[in-house]
Amino acid sequence: MKVTREKWSKNFSEWFDRVLAEGEFYDYGRYPVKGVGVWMPYGFRLRQNVVSLIRRMLDSTGHEEILLPLLIPQELLSRETQHIKGFESEVFWVTKGGSQELDVKVSLRPTSEVAITYMESLWLNSYKQLPKKYYQIVSVFRYETKATRPMIRLREITTFKEAHTVHETYEDAQKQVEEAISIYSKFFDELGIPYLLSERPEWDRFAGALHTYAFDTLMPDGKVIQIGTAHHLGQNFTKALDFKVQRRDGSLCHPHQTSYGISDRVVAVIISMNGDDHGPIISPKVAPIKVVVVPIPSKDDEEVTKRVFEYSKKVGDMLRESGIESVVDLDPEKTPGEKYYVWELKGVPLRAEVGPKELEKNSIFLKRRDTFQGKSVPLEDVIEAVTETLNSMFLDLRKNAESFLLNNVKYEKDPDKAKSLLSSGGIIEIPWCGDNTCGMKLEEITDARVLGYPLQDRKVNDPCAICGKPAKTVLRVAKTY
Amino acid sequence: MKVTREKWSKNFSEWFDRVLAEGEFYDYGRYPVKGVGVWMPYGFRLRQNVVSLIRRMLDSTGHEEILLPLLIPQELLSRETQHIKGFESEVFWVTKGGSQELDVKVSLRPTSEVAITYMESLWLNSYKQLPKKYYQIVSVFRYETKATRPMIRLREITTFKEAHTVHETYEDAQKQVEEAISIYSKFFDELGIPYLLSERPEWDRFAGALHTYAFDTLMPDGKVIQIGTAHHLGQNFTKALDFKVQRRDGSLCHPHQTSYGISDRVVAVIISMNGDDHGPIISPKVAPIKVVVVPIPSKDDEEVTKRVFEYSKKVGDMLRESGIESVVDLDPEKTPGEKYYVWELKGVPLRAEVGPKELEKNSIFLKRRDTFQGKSVPLEDVIEAVTETLNSMFLDLRKNAESFLLNNVKYEKDPDKAKSLLSSGGIIEIPWCGDNTCGMKLEEITDARVLGYPLQDRKVNDPCAICGKPAKTVLRVAKTY
Repeated sequence: MKVTREKWSKNFSEWFDRVLAEGEFYDYGRYPVKGVGVWMPYGFRLRQNVVSLIRRMLDSTGHEEILLPLLIPQELLSRETQHIKGFESEVFWVTKGGSQELDVKVSLRPTSEVAITYMESLWLNSYKQLPKKYYQIVSVFRYETKATRPMIRLREITTFKEAHTVHETYEDAQKQVEEAISIYSKFFDELGIPYLLSERPEWDRFAGALHTYAFDTLMPDGKVIQIGTAHHLGQNFTKALDFKVQRRDGSLCHPHQTSYGISDRVVAVIISMNGDDHGPIISPKVAPIKVVVVPIPSKDDEEVTKRVFEYSKKVGDMLRESGIESVVDLDPEKTPGEKYYVWELKGVPLRAEVGPKELEKNSIFLKRRDTFQGKSVPLEDVIEAVTETLNSMFLDLRKNAESFLLNNVKYEKDPDKAKSLLSSGGIIEIPWCGDNTCGMKLEEITDARVLGYPLQDRKVNDPCAICGKPAKTVLRVAKTY
Repeated sequence: MKVTREKWSKNFSEWFDRVLAEGEFYDYGRYPVKGVGVWMPYGFRLRQNVVSLIRRMLDSTGHEEILLPLLIPQELLSRETQHIKGFESEVFWVTKGGSQELDVKVSLRPTSEVAITYMESLWLNSYKQLPKKYYQIVSVFRYETKATRPMIRLREITTFKEAHTVHETYEDAQKQVEEAISIYSKFFDELGIPYLLSERPEWDRFAGALHTYAFDTLMPDGKVIQIGTAHHLGQNFTKALDFKVQRRDGSLCHPHQTSYGISDRVVAVIISMNGDDHGPIISPKVAPIKVVVVPIPSKDDEEVTKRVFEYSKKVGDMLRESGIESVVDLDPEKTPGEKYYVWELKGVPLRAEVGPKELEKNSIFLKRRDTFQGKSVPLEDVIEAVTETLNSMFLDLRKNAESFLLNNVKYEKDPDKAKSLLSSGGIIEIPWCGDNTCGMKLEEITDARVLGYPLQDRKVNDPCAICGKPAKTVLRVAKTY
């Protein structure tokens, strides 16, 4: 089978919409509210696997899960000035209950920094309780006026995992940001998602943060997507809400905070980053179904066909008993080809083809979704072969995705050339003096978005692409989602 | 230790509020929006155990989890006439996005029948796809004008597990209601929650349902609380949304639906139903912490105290290695008595006291939270003893709760006497002819709420308490939450 990737990479947007719908991941654009989607059963299971992974990682590092109210009153949301400025144009407001006007306008949470800080001020009063790490997994709402996109730019983001931490000192909070970065790095590694880590420039920080660090990756069309952020909030919110704790020396202080989040976009990337014209290839680590068993009827012998179907069920049972999520597609009305089409659209990593030949040889024919390479495997070796193939697929897919990202990060000292390079996607690193004015000018000239700069200063020989002064680092620019 | 139950049963409301707050289950009444609460880490873990249990039960019976949008436009919500009548006075409306008025008012879902029916009409078109069983676990919103109560009567219900199913015929839907009842029965049995199952009378059905079946239980103060409902929706919603499927014979029909739900109230009941003046006793099946290990320092020997603490940690490690969730309370600044107080308020089922005597004998002193009975257990038998004690506690607690419910269901043929009996709580069964007028009159005379009637007709010798005609069954009345 020929692997074709034209539609996937060249018509990505169309491909993505089709895969979400026909693969039955996510129903978008048909529910009668703009910018919201419906997680269908198969997509929900994928989402749930991702949620379980991050939950395990947070629980095992001392994070405690909580659940805060959806509604945040206007007064509370407005306490931190920078924060409300950043969000006020995109907040949904509830103004009525039944037929009554509400006394106070309440917002649908756009994020929860003020709400959690309010509760922390009731729960925490001493350094002895610190550090404290909370998280919740909830829907957040943004009244997006830009064009919305399924899972990527939404008015209801349904898988917002937000962590919020409290610390005695600035340095402790900085260490926590480092822990957050390390957790997210492992999380994306486990998912096989390559990333570039940048500190966002001052003019593009989270509203209310001192520092914003972001994980970005590349979509098949060459556009960059932000998949995770971590913020050092300093004392901005604790001062705004006058939340104080007693320090070791008995004095009172406003503690330091961090927050970090991931969203539905992680699922969007898992579906998108490995694929071809047949559909997505879901990473074996989180695929809801690892193997689909497809019986191939005999052309002329009904008795053999019957036995092939029985044998397929047996293969399915073996897989399930070993804890390998699998499906046996027994639909008598569909041809094997029609079945392949459906399961490829769902991105199931492995297919076990079972026909009269396999029945006779007591084997299966195991085919990889990514390469369409197949091999015959004796029945007694099935579990081992499936496990091994899933593992090598995971590594191969991750390697491919990493190469794709690395090959598309380029250095260019001339901003005009950078602009032209960006028309075919990717990330361009441009020498920069560190000055905001030069940074914003670079954004303007390249007609792209500044992602920020590497966490460690980069030695650059060329001067700043704008002012000609010595460059301190590189500034990364890209077309973004 | 004396077990006192005055505050628990006589001052239940105060007891409940105190336990939620001091036991760190749920922060209520302090967040600046009325009728919403915050799940704190310990309460969240309890909630999560309950959610996992119902998820397992639904997944293993062919239910598929999905996630629908929070926002339902006014037009869609109004399609089914009875439904909107039942809910319109208590719906929250979003009318603004940023500074703009929205074109159409959208509601925060009060429940999801219309939204799911809308999606089903896009997803399902043939009897071959039926039966179909979906569920989701989400927040729902009710603009309650009555007094709100934590976990019991809320404006944001955060643990609304709603199932929605589709069937070819009325009878298939009726069978599904029976499956729902059987799943919920097992669910409550596993949680040790006794219940009374009633069909709600016509005037108290779910808005848009043909039949409503409800699980009720008794709180310690003798008031009844509804903990689960199952509805036969017939074709009400499929007709209202003109959702049709092709039948076996090729004709088109509006399919039949059911829906069934449970909520935060289940957690409220778990916290409330077994308790005393020290706090709640959480059912061992879902308790987030099964055992707390409390080291008891030596009065005069610091070296022994140090060894007691080491030994306690060893006990905690043993428990955890066997998969028994436990905590070792090593706080050096608190006395054992202070620790007991805290963990009793959290309802941890077992306490392992470990002092110099236990250190010397290589044992622990294991104390049950419900009876405060203790026994010495050699270290090598700890896992077995803990497991066995947790099991017998579960059975004892369930039996107690069952007796409490059974002892408080009484038969009374005189409505005035029923009214006076109801002043001390419980459920009264009154002979009834089956006529709505008589039923509503009974509700009026007893100044209580009709729960409904048993699913099987009850043979009653006395005539209807209102009209004197032959009684068909009994009507259950109670003071309710």
